[in-house]
Amino acid sequence: MTESVKFLLDESRIPKHWYNLMADLPAPPPPVLHPGTLKPVGPDDLAPLFPMSLIAQEVSTEREIEIPEPVREVYRQWRTTPLYRARRLERALQTPARIYYKYEGVSPAGSHKPNTAVAQAFYNREAGVKRLTTETGAGQWGSSLAFAGAVFGIEVQVFMVRVSYDQKPYRRALMETYGARCVASPSMETSFGRSVLASSPESNGSLGIAISEAVEIAASRDDTKYALGSVLNHVLLHQTVIGLEAMAQLEAADDYPDVIVGCTGGGSNFAGIVFPFLGSQLRGGRKLRIVAVEPAACPSLTRGRYAYDFGDTGHMTPLAKMHTLGSTFMPPGFHAGGLRYHGMAPLVSHIRQLGLIEARAYQQTQCFEAGVFFARHEGIVPAPEANHAVKGAIDEAVRCREEGVSRAILFNLCGHGHFDMQAYLDYFGGRLADQEYDESELAMALAGLPSVAEPV
Amino acid sequence: MTESVKFLLDESRIPKHWYNLMADLPAPPPPVLHPGTLKPVGPDDLAPLFPMSLIAQEVSTEREIEIPEPVREVYRQWRTTPLYRARRLERALQTPARIYYKYEGVSPAGSHKPNTAVAQAFYNREAGVKRLTTETGAGQWGSSLAFAGAVFGIEVQVFMVRVSYDQKPYRRALMETYGARCVASPSMETSFGRSVLASSPESNGSLGIAISEAVEIAASRDDTKYALGSVLNHVLLHQTVIGLEAMAQLEAADDYPDVIVGCTGGGSNFAGIVFPFLGSQLRGGRKLRIVAVEPAACPSLTRGRYAYDFGDTGHMTPLAKMHTLGSTFMPPGFHAGGLRYHGMAPLVSHIRQLGLIEARAYQQTQCFEAGVFFARHEGIVPAPEANHAVKGAIDEAVRCREEGVSRAILFNLCGHGHFDMQAYLDYFGGRLADQEYDESELAMALAGLPSVAEPV
Repeated sequence: MTESVKFLLDESRIPKHWYNLMADLPAPPPPVLHPGTLKPVGPDDLAPLFPMSLIAQEVSTEREIEIPEPVREVYRQWRTTPLYRARRLERALQTPARIYYKYEGVSPAGSHKPNTAVAQAFYNREAGVKRLTTETGAGQWGSSLAFAGAVFGIEVQVFMVRVSYDQKPYRRALMETYGARCVASPSMETSFGRSVLASSPESNGSLGIAISEAVEIAASRDDTKYALGSVLNHVLLHQTVIGLEAMAQLEAADDYPDVIVGCTGGGSNFAGIVFPFLGSQLRGGRKLRIVAVEPAACPSLTRGRYAYDFGDTGHMTPLAKMHTLGSTFMPPGFHAGGLRYHGMAPLVSHIRQLGLIEARAYQQTQCFEAGVFFARHEGIVPAPEANHAVKGAIDEAVRCREEGVSRAILFNLCGHGHFDMQAYLDYFGGRLADQEYDESELAMALAGLPSVAEPV
Repeated sequence: MTESVKFLLDESRIPKHWYNLMADLPAPPPPVLHPGTLKPVGPDDLAPLFPMSLIAQEVSTEREIEIPEPVREVYRQWRTTPLYRARRLERALQTPARIYYKYEGVSPAGSHKPNTAVAQAFYNREAGVKRLTTETGAGQWGSSLAFAGAVFGIEVQVFMVRVSYDQKPYRRALMETYGARCVASPSMETSFGRSVLASSPESNGSLGIAISEAVEIAASRDDTKYALGSVLNHVLLHQTVIGLEAMAQLEAADDYPDVIVGCTGGGSNFAGIVFPFLGSQLRGGRKLRIVAVEPAACPSLTRGRYAYDFGDTGHMTPLAKMHTLGSTFMPPGFHAGGLRYHGMAPLVSHIRQLGLIEARAYQQTQCFEAGVFFARHEGIVPAPEANHAVKGAIDEAVRCREEGVSRAILFNLCGHGHFDMQAYLDYFGGRLADQEYDESELAMALAGLPSVAEPV
């Protein structure tokens, strides 16, 4: 008999609820603050940006939040996603470890991002919203929201970081194929964009600037709201379908993870695979090690400060307590654009602070080396972001070999690398160098953090 | 209750046999001839290029040929592939038609090609072959064989048509990620390549030239064989997993196709979806219409001659009777590189000749228009080749609307377009023009067909 390499669930097993970690935390995370009053924000403060249904999810402490049937119907197109047992990789590593990976690259946009994009587009349509604005770096989030907008008949405008807009025309083409309008940021379409261009006409842009532009438009128009692809509680919530499915699939495989590895940029794919397992542990279930892997060039969890900070460069967003490198920190250019963000999701920061997870930073060349090794054995070419998780999982598997111990390692392969082949070309051509951030710049960005007393 | 949009089969339902149409044909196809003697080729003539197991499949008349367990084990990674009911597309078209599509883009290389690449790599490894050579145009076949070579530990050398090598570095990067060596063709590595370069140093290359180079190397080395991605009987055979799965999935959907649509270049993805259904019809089962869609710029089925011709430009291959534009015909450049071949698979040509299938040619802009419409409703961005099938299926669905008849339409979405976004950019930018071949060039190429009397 052949051993299974792929675990799929029947479509009836697509989760009916998202899992909300807030219900099981030993202590609640610090509140989000209004940037003017420094008081905790209320629903009305967020109403210009988000529909009430999503604001309710942002603050909910219910353990299970029902997935609306129209969202499940769209999920059905690619969910459940496969859980793989990486048998060829295990053999190549000569490890006694059992390596499992959940593969989110089968979605229409090629990553985990549609899990929340579809939900957000649905709730916005229900609220009568005609248009959504958002930002995108590498383009994975922008193309996911473009897809979701096409499905629910919502116009989508994407502010794409200038340097990516120029360097990644194919991700832009994907957004346009789905019917979205893609604008290079900083742009002349917002007053914040114009102010940036006035002082630096050649600006490459940044995620923080693009967020400010998207927020400005949404805040100033009645028929338009804003959608964020990571960081916020409701975004992390929507991603828990990943971990919920993985739990059921591992049950079918008659196994349970000893270690979970996920890469972290804003934190949403990491939360998606981790939270359901962590919740089970917090309710008295089996304990496991959880490892967050981040890029050494943008190391918010391992080198950032746990402090209140803005989510954007224009300082239009509320203040959230999170691991941050400072909202003015400009990470060096590296290929995992999805991990190039100064802050970490408040919920992920919180569980790090509670000592529930470990964090580790890797350089990009070692991640690409791991990704190519993975591709040659498992056949799937990972996105540069996902290579961080691959590297983390391989290191855990090598440790198993060295210790002579068989452990179950689970990681999330959050997307494929089909739109990132230039990075692979650069890697093969020896043009992909490790990137170091500037220590004095980091110190300056951290010194510039807003001074906020912890609210009572 | 929500209506199903996706039909998946349990991994135990991955076919255990390939289906061989030869068993059910009312008349056998004309034999393949030795180019020197003009006598039917025997196994020994093909032995320098292929292992005996594949040569046996090439001439077999057994209805079912067992899929070796190690091949099924690799298939298991992405098979069974989903069969979708295109409900959002149906609504957008306001058609009473039931549109189904089988999606082969979920494979590691993103197309149907690994179905045969994995099988060919397996049989070659069993025969002790150390190295495989092949050609590739758009790169889908080359990357599939590169993947299969990585899985079975066989070295792969790909001759990639020069113009694609220069214009499609990302497909090349994918082959290199899988560990294959990719060479621009014409190259200095073969005497045929050197002869082409001597007379036209700036040659863009062609599939016919690249085949000659790959065959030359395989024929001259003991440890090296050749692998072809389409046209041959055994290649079409391996692709029948597509149609066999689709039959079982449609049974689960309680439906049966009235029409099947497939795009045709060499003929393998078309054969894959069509042959199992056609076989059932030939054995007395339900009759259906079958439509082959080809590019108007390279219309072998609709404008070619049914005649004996070479498979390559260097005239190293045997002669096969097929619909051909002549082996010296150079189709104009268009974006569906996988459909740019002068000939059609002998088996597909044969059933066309028997009146069992229809054929239709489309221009590329109308195919891209259909592809973008499809992407906005179904979420999947098709490869330019697959856009031809999408266009054909949409036309059938529109006909259903006009006639007020509900028919079941099945088509094969043979691959995704992630590596073809330049074509979409060109389409959106108005730079994608329809291409006409030169009538006098076609006449000349047809006049140059080898003169072969039909063997007795």
